Amino acid sequence: MVRYKELLVNVTMPFVQELPYLTNWCTLDRLLNMCSENEPGNCLGWAARDPSGVMSPYRFDRRAVGNDDVSIKITHCGMCYADVVWTRNLHGDSKYPLVPGHEIVGIVKEVGPNVSRFKVGDHVGVGTYVNSCRDCEFCDEGMEVCCVKGSVFTFNGVDVDGTVTKGGYSSFIVVHERYCYKIPENYPSHLAAPLLCAGITVYSPMIRHNMKQPGKSLGVIGLGGLGHMAVLFGKAFGLKVTVFSTSISKKEEALTVLGADNFVLSSDEQQMKALNKSLDFIIDSASGDHHFEPYLWLLKTFGVYVLLSFPKEVKFSPASLLIGMKTFSGSITGGTKLTQEMLDFCTAHKIYPKVEVVPIQYANEALERMIKRDVKYRFVIDIEDSLK
Amino acid sequence: MVRYKELLVNVTMPFVQELPYLTNWCTLDRLLNMCSENEPGNCLGWAARDPSGVMSPYRFDRRAVGNDDVSIKITHCGMCYADVVWTRNLHGDSKYPLVPGHEIVGIVKEVGPNVSRFKVGDHVGVGTYVNSCRDCEFCDEGMEVCCVKGSVFTFNGVDVDGTVTKGGYSSFIVVHERYCYKIPENYPSHLAAPLLCAGITVYSPMIRHNMKQPGKSLGVIGLGGLGHMAVLFGKAFGLKVTVFSTSISKKEEALTVLGADNFVLSSDEQQMKALNKSLDFIIDSASGDHHFEPYLWLLKTFGVYVLLSFPKEVKFSPASLLIGMKTFSGSITGGTKLTQEMLDFCTAHKIYPKVEVVPIQYANEALERMIKRDVKYRFVIDIEDSLK
Repeated sequence: MVRYKELLVNVTMPFVQELPYLTNWCTLDRLLNMCSENEPGNCLGWAARDPSGVMSPYRFDRRAVGNDDVSIKITHCGMCYADVVWTRNLHGDSKYPLVPGHEIVGIVKEVGPNVSRFKVGDHVGVGTYVNSCRDCEFCDEGMEVCCVKGSVFTFNGVDVDGTVTKGGYSSFIVVHERYCYKIPENYPSHLAAPLLCAGITVYSPMIRHNMKQPGKSLGVIGLGGLGHMAVLFGKAFGLKVTVFSTSISKKEEALTVLGADNFVLSSDEQQMKALNKSLDFIIDSASGDHHFEPYLWLLKTFGVYVLLSFPKEVKFSPASLLIGMKTFSGSITGGTKLTQEMLDFCTAHKIYPKVEVVPIQYANEALERMIKRDVKYRFVIDIEDSLK
Repeated sequence: MVRYKELLVNVTMPFVQELPYLTNWCTLDRLLNMCSENEPGNCLGWAARDPSGVMSPYRFDRRAVGNDDVSIKITHCGMCYADVVWTRNLHGDSKYPLVPGHEIVGIVKEVGPNVSRFKVGDHVGVGTYVNSCRDCEFCDEGMEVCCVKGSVFTFNGVDVDGTVTKGGYSSFIVVHERYCYKIPENYPSHLAAPLLCAGITVYSPMIRHNMKQPGKSLGVIGLGGLGHMAVLFGKAFGLKVTVFSTSISKKEEALTVLGADNFVLSSDEQQMKALNKSLDFIIDSASGDHHFEPYLWLLKTFGVYVLLSFPKEVKFSPASLLIGMKTFSGSITGGTKLTQEMLDFCTAHKIYPKVEVVPIQYANEALERMIKRDVKYRFVIDIEDSLK
């Protein structure tokens, strides 16, 4: 657990700089909460108000618990790069005030009369979406994220009742039980949070492309929130894992803390060449622009390259794909069925994301650090203890 | 069957223009064959001598029939774009004199003592490769084209004995029986030829990506030798087939002769938009440079795009692949097991490529026309009747 006071001294929100008399976190904390004290609304969250992306306390209303709903007191919320994207309107569709957060973990406080899977007191999680048509081929298969009518994102989405969804940087959330997952009792809540987006985003294509094959080899490009999960899953699947990074500083941790078998500096042409045709799978989680072709040549015949990030463009020569009949695939998060399976798999195999727990008051600073890729490997907000 | 005399009048080989006294095909034919009359060698073929790519008669030696070999009198040879590429040294690795041709059909004339699958008189075919290690995981699975030591291409390849392989623009060929296919008796030889490269190149990824799903939808980009096979296989698999072309002139034939369900001019933005998220599969056989992204948006969730050609580069936005979790795959030809299956499938379903049969003396002109994409849809050389 981080030390709140130390962290808060470094808070870099613009308005803090205009308030030089704020010398300790208690004062700031009180001030921030005071801002929202007189606002209406049954739920306290933190919201970005405009494309500056700076978040501050914000009160709003959650709906009453419906027949199929569960109401969850949020204890933790992971911080995903999506939170950067939408608080700052990088996709041009942000709806302010915007409460981010789609890696939500908490405790059930109330259930609707039709709810069968959960009871008060259960440890549960909510991921990247909170609604879907529940009637299409994909919903039928537990792949609600692919709903033909579009799934409703957990924040900045427009729900069927027309309201804009608000995410997990808040005290509680009300969701249809279908989009709620059981967190096994012995799995720590703060570690479960990153599984709800980063975890399933990596696990889903690994299952779809049949990567549970002990002895085969996996390359992981980029060692952030997603990449480090790919290493952990890869090792749990019995794969030989090679981490590719632009920074030698990641080597030690990749090998010792995460348990990768091999580390390659991607700028080292000799090391890269030595791995020619050696990998069965590649998971590319590097968000920055980078070349694809040097990695495609590292794949064996019928090798599979899975892209999970959004660089500016994908570009390679046809030969690098056709020779060896390779597959280049894209993936975003996963369905409810696989999400629950992944949570159970992580529990059974003691797979734990590496996180840095922070108070909600540190969220702005944390987003800044995420932009600088200065996080190992996921921030998780301790909502329960800091959002009051 | 084309009329040889008419065709030959139009032969555009440079040296023909220097011989104005050649006014009819018989004279030319005699002259050309005379060129090689006094050369040694048990086999007569046509070879390119340099990167001009112009072919002329050429005598060379085929090996004696070994224990596991069959000797095949060639009756027909399909003309693949690979013949253009290597006669003209477009890949920089052509070994002259170069006898092209890897869509070979003929009749078994002799078999080695260990040959079990063939007997004299059998109708057989040879495709794009004539050797492999026969000992690796891919060879073991009948996927010799993926041999870890590299398969030996039917022409311009270097065989294990160090000789440079010579292709089907020749009177006979000697191959290990493993790389020889049975052409069902009732399947016409001249139509079987294009199946040995174009056919299997299309069929193989269609099987690998599970496209035998009646009712699903297939887009075919480019309507040449490969593309027209994709339409024929697609219809045989029960798919709804849409042909995309840059030329409206292909519409009528795509719909009536090939049986496609739909034709879309790829430059028509409205038609393209109307097909948004409508296709399960795309087979891209367009050899020219083109955009990929507009087609990727036409794929449904989990849609599969198979690239079979070699444009200059592949380029698209990550979003067009990740949204819908699509797969972009490359493929080149197929293994022996699937090739035989494909030949039997074509026979059972009366799938016949559309070809233009030409004499060997027309081969240079035919290559020129292939470069101009002026062929519907495959040239097949009548070796038996014209190479003498």
